[in-house]
Amino acid sequence: MPKLRVSAFGLSIDGFGAGAHQSLENPLGVGGESLHHWFFPTRTFQKMHGSGDGTTGVDEDFAAQSMANLGAWILGRNMFGPIRGPWSDENWKGWWGEEPPYHVPVFVLTHHPRPPLVMKGGTTFYFVTEGIHEALKRAQEAAGGKDIRVGGGAATIRQYLRAGLIEEMHLAISPVILGSGESLLEGIDLLALGFQCTRHVTTPSAMHVVLSNTK
Amino acid sequence: MPKLRVSAFGLSIDGFGAGAHQSLENPLGVGGESLHHWFFPTRTFQKMHGSGDGTTGVDEDFAAQSMANLGAWILGRNMFGPIRGPWSDENWKGWWGEEPPYHVPVFVLTHHPRPPLVMKGGTTFYFVTEGIHEALKRAQEAAGGKDIRVGGGAATIRQYLRAGLIEEMHLAISPVILGSGESLLEGIDLLALGFQCTRHVTTPSAMHVVLSNTK
Repeated sequence: MPKLRVSAFGLSIDGFGAGAHQSLENPLGVGGESLHHWFFPTRTFQKMHGSGDGTTGVDEDFAAQSMANLGAWILGRNMFGPIRGPWSDENWKGWWGEEPPYHVPVFVLTHHPRPPLVMKGGTTFYFVTEGIHEALKRAQEAAGGKDIRVGGGAATIRQYLRAGLIEEMHLAISPVILGSGESLLEGIDLLALGFQCTRHVTTPSAMHVVLSNTK
Repeated sequence: MPKLRVSAFGLSIDGFGAGAHQSLENPLGVGGESLHHWFFPTRTFQKMHGSGDGTTGVDEDFAAQSMANLGAWILGRNMFGPIRGPWSDENWKGWWGEEPPYHVPVFVLTHHPRPPLVMKGGTTFYFVTEGIHEALKRAQEAAGGKDIRVGGGAATIRQYLRAGLIEEMHLAISPVILGSGESLLEGIDLLALGFQCTRHVTTPSAMHVVLSNTK
């Protein structure tokens, strides 16, 4: 069975996974980009979005692992875009341009139906209105035995955590404070859910921790 | 004016500064000791409580700074002991034995009056029933121009944070999850209070961050 996991999820000192006030200009909320300063210079990120060069080392190892062996993704609707409520048209095609960095089926949780959206490079966005269990079922069918990554945002990860469905989380704790935003763990008892911190590595840019569900 | 600061305060990945269920057996709550694994091996800690040897390096530098130039401490009552409600007698003299590691006046916030308690080595515990501002005033008078450290627990630090009185916080984020316990920052907007992360250093044991109030 494919593993359902969270990877390379940036967390601030004060526990936020994204800033407040997401908008077209601030896809990650105000200040949210600062959570990913460990990630942007890596070879993995630079291959996807930049020059093709990029750093190697521990940060890059985690970045590469976050993208490896993925058969499908699950995203919350706000991670797909800033639009709320019904889709007024089908012009919005995600934050990532014509060729999104997924290259596999991506299941987007929403309350508002919309036909699948085929993008360049192997990414197809499927819009799932039947909830997190149905999205997971469809992702499992699509993943071909590979892992499924819950990309975020925080609210979506929280739903899967509370349902006991996440098997592994790699968090990258960044030395920034956001003040307000999307809390990842507030009110969630990770120990009661069965998690242990099974690995930690610090770099100049972040503290990487891997939390594994041992239940 | 002496600086009011928090130093060497251990924080879990999930934001707790102590475990749940504090008791005589678990002064730091269940699992709370794991927040201080970076601190226990240091020369500073070992001089206070151990063999006198101990590690040097970044963890030790932060440990030493946490104890340097202190003229007074402020503690919440639960950091002084596990007793709740009125003092039934005066037998409880803190967690630390006859010679506590403070060696300066310590102001303990409590709703229940009690005469000052003179210990060996220069520590005197004063019990303050008039609230956080009065405790700070008395600590300033006693500190002789040196800094005042709010030792904790989390609830006491939160009170001083919300009142805008903390000037600097050094947090040591440890790679552990506690699941439940005393949250340090939940519901507190550090940016709105004027804090910035002005320094960060990672070690194999912790991510050290210094948050400075720039207002």
